[in-house]
Amino acid sequence: MNKIIILAVFCASIIVPPAVAGAPTALAIHGGAGTISRDKLTPDREQAIRAALDRALDAGHAVLDAGGPALDAVAAAVVVLEDSPYFNAGKGAVFNADGVNELDSAIMDGSTRRAGAIAGVHRVRNPVQLARAVMEQSPHVMLVGDGAEAFASSIGMPLVEPSYFRTEERWQQLQDAKARTSARVALPRSYYFGTVGAVALDASGHIAAATSTGGMTNKRWGRVGDAPIIGAGTWADAGCGVSATGWGEFFIRLNVAADICARVAYRGDTLADAAGSVVMKRVPELGGDGGVIAMDAQGNIAMPFNTSGMYRAWIRPDGSRGTAVYADP
Amino acid sequence: MNKIIILAVFCASIIVPPAVAGAPTALAIHGGAGTISRDKLTPDREQAIRAALDRALDAGHAVLDAGGPALDAVAAAVVVLEDSPYFNAGKGAVFNADGVNELDSAIMDGSTRRAGAIAGVHRVRNPVQLARAVMEQSPHVMLVGDGAEAFASSIGMPLVEPSYFRTEERWQQLQDAKARTSARVALPRSYYFGTVGAVALDASGHIAAATSTGGMTNKRWGRVGDAPIIGAGTWADAGCGVSATGWGEFFIRLNVAADICARVAYRGDTLADAAGSVVMKRVPELGGDGGVIAMDAQGNIAMPFNTSGMYRAWIRPDGSRGTAVYADP
Repeated sequence: MNKIIILAVFCASIIVPPAVAGAPTALAIHGGAGTISRDKLTPDREQAIRAALDRALDAGHAVLDAGGPALDAVAAAVVVLEDSPYFNAGKGAVFNADGVNELDSAIMDGSTRRAGAIAGVHRVRNPVQLARAVMEQSPHVMLVGDGAEAFASSIGMPLVEPSYFRTEERWQQLQDAKARTSARVALPRSYYFGTVGAVALDASGHIAAATSTGGMTNKRWGRVGDAPIIGAGTWADAGCGVSATGWGEFFIRLNVAADICARVAYRGDTLADAAGSVVMKRVPELGGDGGVIAMDAQGNIAMPFNTSGMYRAWIRPDGSRGTAVYADP
Repeated sequence: MNKIIILAVFCASIIVPPAVAGAPTALAIHGGAGTISRDKLTPDREQAIRAALDRALDAGHAVLDAGGPALDAVAAAVVVLEDSPYFNAGKGAVFNADGVNELDSAIMDGSTRRAGAIAGVHRVRNPVQLARAVMEQSPHVMLVGDGAEAFASSIGMPLVEPSYFRTEERWQQLQDAKARTSARVALPRSYYFGTVGAVALDASGHIAAATSTGGMTNKRWGRVGDAPIIGAGTWADAGCGVSATGWGEFFIRLNVAADICARVAYRGDTLADAAGSVVMKRVPELGGDGGVIAMDAQGNIAMPFNTSGMYRAWIRPDGSRGTAVYADP
C-alpha cells in the first residue's frame, strides 16, 4: 500500500508541473474570423456557437485550474472545437475540390519550443492530437498527407471514415463554390474562412498555442494554408503565443504569429500593439484579412481581427470570462 | 518597324526593374552544411563541388549584372545546384524510406513578400521553378504532394521520370541507412544534411531567397523539413533574406530565417550578430545543427554554420568572390 502511495506521489511529481499557487493562468480560443453578419447568423445558431465556445473554454480551463500544462489546455479546447460541427476544423470542416475533407493542424509548446504539425489528412478525427503526437512521438515537426496517416496508424491512433467529417451545410457550400467557380463568380468570403485555435498560459508561466482547420472550400493541388505552418498560423515561445485565422496565404507571407511575438520580444511592443499592427495594418496592406488570438507571459490577451466578426472566447487571469462574435461583443 | 522598336522598348521597360546604375548587388549560395571532413572529401570531388558552386554563382550573377531581379538570380543559381549530382536537391537528392526522391523547395521575393513553396514532389526536375510557379501562377503559397505535381502539369511544366533523380551514391546511402536503422546504429550526420539555397540583392535594392532539398535520407511519413517552410528555412523581406541548411526540425522550431531578419529589423542587430546568435547559439542550445546564408539591404553577407563545413560561395558588392567548404576557406 505504501509503495502504491509512494509511486502515486512520484508519478504526480512527474506529471504535474511546478505550478505556482495563485500564479495567473489565462486561455483564449477562436472559431474563425470572417464575414459574419447579424442578418444571416440566426439567434439559435449564434447561441449554439457560443455554447460550443463555452464548452471549449471549460475543457481548457479545467486543465489550467488543476495546475496542468498549457499544452494540455490548448489541446483540450481545440478538440472540443474540432468535434463541433459549427467550425471549419475536424467535424464540420469544409470540402476540397475532390469532395474530401482535408485537415491541417499544429501545436507548439512555448517553453521548450517543441512543435508538431500535420497537413492534408483525411481520416484523423482530431488533427490537433495527431499534431501533438508528431511532436511527442516522432523525431519530426511536420508530416503531410498519407505519410501523416501512416504515422497515426503506426502509433495506434484510430482512423475514422472520411464520411465522419461530412456536414450537409459544408457539402452544399462545395456545390455552390463549384457552380460559382464555373460561372467565374466570386465565392463568399465565408467559404475561405474558418479555423479554430487556442492559446493558454499555465500556472508555471508556460505558453502554448494550437490551431486546426479544414482550409478553404474547393481547394485544390494539396494547398496548405497557414494553420500548420509553425510561425505563420501557430507560434509559441517563452513570452508569447499566437493562433491565427484568416486568408492563410497572407499569414504565411507575413510570418504573422511569430512576427507578433518578435515585436514583443525584440522591440518591447505591448502584445496589443504588436498584434494590432500586424493584423490591422500589415495584413490588409498586403490584401489579406483575418484575425488572431495572442497572449503574453502576464496573461494579457489580444484578439484583433479586420473582418466583420471572429468567434472567440477567453478567461483572463482575474477569472473574468466571455464569448464574442462581432467587434462589439 | 517603328512599332516593333516601340514595343520592344515598352516590353523592356516592364521586364527590367528600375535598376540603379552602380547600386550594390550581391549573391550568396550554399550547397549544404554538415560533417564534411578533409580526409573523406577527395581533392577531385572538392574541386568538382567548387566548380559547381562557381557555375551557380555565374548563373545568378549574370542576372544581377544585367540589372535583373534578385528573384531571377536566386532561381537561376538554385537551378544549377539542383542539376548538379553533388548536392541534396534535384538530381542527387537523397532517397526516402520508400526508395523515392521526395523534394521540397521555397522561394520568396522580399520586396513584395510574395512566396511559393512545394513539398513532397517526385517528378519535378527543378523544384525551385515549381515553387516559383506556385507563387506566380496560383493564388496559393504552398502546395504539397500529388496535388503540387497536378498543379505542375496544369501549367504545362514537364515532369520527369522519378529515376532521373537517382544517383548510385545516394542509393547506397539509403541501403546503409536502412541497415544501420535495423541495427539501431546512428546514421552519419552527412545523411541528414544537404540543401541548396541562394540569397541575392539586386540593383533595385530588392532581396530574394530560395532553398531546395531532398530532405533526410530514409525519411518516412511525409516528413517535411524547414526548406519549404516560409520563415523557417527560407525568408526574404525588404531588409533581409535568408536560406538555411541543417537539421530542419530545429530550424522550424526556432523560425530561424525570419528570426534572423526580425532581429535586424526590430532590434537593430547587425546581420552578422543576428545570424551568428541564431545559428551559433540558439540552434545548438536546442540540440540542432546547421548553417545559413544571410544578406541585408546593403549587400552584407553572413554565412555562419556550427558544423565542420558548409559548401558556400559569394559575390560581394565590391565584386570580390569566393567559394569555401570548411571554416577556414
